[in-house]
Amino acid sequence: MAGNPDTRTPSNEGRAGWFSGKNLISIKDFSKAHIEDMLDKSEAMLHSLERHERRLDLQSKIMATLFFEPSTRTRLSFESAMQRLGGGAIGFADASTSSSAKGETLADTVKIVSSYADIIVIRHPKAGAMAEAVENASVPVINAGDGIGEHPTQALIDLFTIRMEKKRLGGLDIALVGDLKNGRTIHSLAYALAMFGNNLTLIAPDALQMPEGMVEDIKSRYHVEVSRSDSLDEAGRCEVVYIPRVQKERFTDIDEYHRFAKYYVVNRDFLEKADGDPIIMSPLPRTEEISRDIDNMKNSVYFKQASYGVPVRMAILSMILEGIK
Amino acid sequence: MAGNPDTRTPSNEGRAGWFSGKNLISIKDFSKAHIEDMLDKSEAMLHSLERHERRLDLQSKIMATLFFEPSTRTRLSFESAMQRLGGGAIGFADASTSSSAKGETLADTVKIVSSYADIIVIRHPKAGAMAEAVENASVPVINAGDGIGEHPTQALIDLFTIRMEKKRLGGLDIALVGDLKNGRTIHSLAYALAMFGNNLTLIAPDALQMPEGMVEDIKSRYHVEVSRSDSLDEAGRCEVVYIPRVQKERFTDIDEYHRFAKYYVVNRDFLEKADGDPIIMSPLPRTEEISRDIDNMKNSVYFKQASYGVPVRMAILSMILEGIK
Amino acid sequence: MAGNPDTRTPSNEGRAGWFSGKNLISIKDFSKAHIEDMLDKSEAMLHSLERHERRLDLQSKIMATLFFEPSTRTRLSFESAMQRLGGGAIGFADASTSSSAKGETLADTVKIVSSYADIIVIRHPKAGAMAEAVENASVPVINAGDGIGEHPTQALIDLFTIRMEKKRLGGLDIALVGDLKNGRTIHSLAYALAMFGNNLTLIAPDALQMPEGMVEDIKSRYHVEVSRSDSLDEAGRCEVVYIPRVQKERFTDIDEYHRFAKYYVVNRDFLEKADGDPIIMSPLPRTEEISRDIDNMKNSVYFKQASYGVPVRMAILSMILEGIK
Repeated sequence: MAGNPDTRTPSNEGRAGWFSGKNLISIKDFSKAHIEDMLDKSEAMLHSLERHERRLDLQSKIMATLFFEPSTRTRLSFESAMQRLGGGAIGFADASTSSSAKGETLADTVKIVSSYADIIVIRHPKAGAMAEAVENASVPVINAGDGIGEHPTQALIDLFTIRMEKKRLGGLDIALVGDLKNGRTIHSLAYALAMFGNNLTLIAPDALQMPEGMVEDIKSRYHVEVSRSDSLDEAGRCEVVYIPRVQKERFTDIDEYHRFAKYYVVNRDFLEKADGDPIIMSPLPRTEEISRDIDNMKNSVYFKQASYGVPVRMAILSMILEGIK
Repeated sequence: MAGNPDTRTPSNEGRAGWFSGKNLISIKDFSKAHIEDMLDKSEAMLHSLERHERRLDLQSKIMATLFFEPSTRTRLSFESAMQRLGGGAIGFADASTSSSAKGETLADTVKIVSSYADIIVIRHPKAGAMAEAVENASVPVINAGDGIGEHPTQALIDLFTIRMEKKRLGGLDIALVGDLKNGRTIHSLAYALAMFGNNLTLIAPDALQMPEGMVEDIKSRYHVEVSRSDSLDEAGRCEVVYIPRVQKERFTDIDEYHRFAKYYVVNRDFLEKADGDPIIMSPLPRTEEISRDIDNMKNSVYFKQASYGVPVRMAILSMILEGIK
Repeated sequence: MAGNPDTRTPSNEGRAGWFSGKNLISIKDFSKAHIEDMLDKSEAMLHSLERHERRLDLQSKIMATLFFEPSTRTRLSFESAMQRLGGGAIGFADASTSSSAKGETLADTVKIVSSYADIIVIRHPKAGAMAEAVENASVPVINAGDGIGEHPTQALIDLFTIRMEKKRLGGLDIALVGDLKNGRTIHSLAYALAMFGNNLTLIAPDALQMPEGMVEDIKSRYHVEVSRSDSLDEAGRCEVVYIPRVQKERFTDIDEYHRFAKYYVVNRDFLEKADGDPIIMSPLPRTEEISRDIDNMKNSVYFKQASYGVPVRMAILSMILEGIK
């Protein structure tokens, strides 16, 4: 078993095998060089998939997927990635079928599952769950979403999509649209995009804008332009528009949810007026914020983005398990 | 990926590989020659299983099982079939653990899962679900039951069972017993049996008889004898009796369900009086319509019929994925 | 298929392959020699895991896990064990996603699944479920817990843990703590420990003590010392303390549950005063009866015990399926 890993290893940057045995908890733990390494590996995996190569990189390795919340995309693409690399999977898709129904703590579950599997992928509703998991696991842990917290493999898929579609990652004008106030996922993505030298246009109703302090912090750290607006028109001149669904589960007031669910809608009309000819991205699922009438337009890359879930997760799994017996 | 396949390919009839990359949505899409090809392949798979051959036909292929409704038999036998051929499986057994719980449409789910798997097997409560799935999938789709609609692999298992047990498929007297009014599954089976030249005895209470127009259509298309009766005694002179459970979930009036649930019961008494020495078939599960006291009689082939689920589904999976990279 | 197997085969004791094709229903079905054989095989599997050997013992074999009740440890460790041996798994984690939701009997489910898999692992809430399963299965059945009944692979893990930690199994003073009145699991373990020549200290509140008749039966059969007490202090002089959680689901009176849930608590204070320096064992999950402040003490072997679930279940699966085509 791997011993308690530590992802914060800036001194190892660039060294082959730097990710071996480490955890993947937050995209903020990684330098540009680390992320570029992951994206390079993801691209290699994508080409391998396109050539229909039969891979056995992780033959006889077992991944545990502990999903305390439902997910189609994340769980299925992790399982697909693991099987495409020759490995196996165990796990549960739903807390009600696990021992947490008998009152077991996450700490105990993770300790035990560490002896059943070589790597643990967790989705959990509590933002603090990952720290508890890492502290108690004796194999590497991957955060597959922790409530309103992080979802680092999604961030890597987002970055990979931009690099594949725009042939570069940096110097782009990128609009983030929707609820930018709550949610560390979108905050983490904003930091990562700025780290790669992209300018940000933050489009949200005032009540859901990104906190001023965070905007200033991003500007001073990465010397990129960050502007705020409440008008979707501002997104039209960008090269990338990133628009996640407004998450019903975050609103205590259902009327407030309905007020914001369709506040911004990217549709054919928007795209026809958009000078920047932006690609439209979303972590999916979508609800009302992306009109189905643009699904077949070349700008709409969200399904391609979802398909990148497999090569990116193949890259992550193989890099973390590389050199692990 | 396979591009949007089309199952209606009569011109390809008899050509090797005619099923490659196609969907399996309705048994009505297939000619006699197509079906005979599938049954031949199923018989080859059965013999392979009996010889305990280790097969790697679908090594490194992934099947997604998207079950929006519960099923033991269908899901487990598909997964067994895929593994017996060396392939892997991902999926969910229950809509509550999928993103449909977050409001995702079937169209979006299918688009995304197309990039995770090489073939998609779907069970869905809505009869229109398969058209939506096929339209949006970029890999072949197998209908594993769509509400009161079709269940084509079950129909193939039914035909295969008759051919294995009676050493021929055609020229037989076959009784269909129960709710013959609603349910396209039983309608499709009736058409398929008639296409193979079997005579049909339709046994149902008047309220649940097969519509007159359908009876006339079958007669004029296939030139077979079709008679209707409300007495189970008529089934006794047949060579095959097919008696599915009365499906509680189809009745809005629970009293009506209870009136019909045990309207016909095949038991030891029935078999002792039956001149035709019929084999008893059922898609299972059974509730009250087949008495447990006949389980060990040679006529009772329903468990053997269930066991054919594996070789028939092995045949289907391997024929559809044949030649697909 | 295996034909209906019979685990009671004392005449075959010691013969290689004695377990081939048999069921594992109750630990009471096995002699000392049988159990020692299983523990030897488990130790070989543990060493194989430690050497990271890639095993293909059960390549192309399929295990069905039919879990009518939730379980993390048991289901996941069976699936891990099967995969570590190169085999595959199908199944369900929850009765609601199975055909039992449509009113199918366990007998019918087991008959059908026998044709999908080479071995069936069942957890079921009813104590009589295993007899029904064995009677209807045509492949070997493993009891993975039947309500308040048996859980024989857990008992084997318990015995294996003692043998690994104490370097012998026999002549030890072992305390069983908690609800010793109800529950055949703990009763079976008591018989097995006594059969191996260990002395038992039975610690329970009067209302939950082991029945006097059972105590006398154990003494006269195995000639070991058995004492009863209601004080946890008595456990302190033992070499092994076995303390399962008090099972909420067994109490009809919730107040009574709360009275007993924390009646005995093994904590740092207990261990500091304990002359015998006992190892602390639990089948897990734990609730309140083992204090988290001892998790990192050398005495606390319950997580190691859980980790033995994989090698012990690998041993069982490989012994039962040995020589089966």
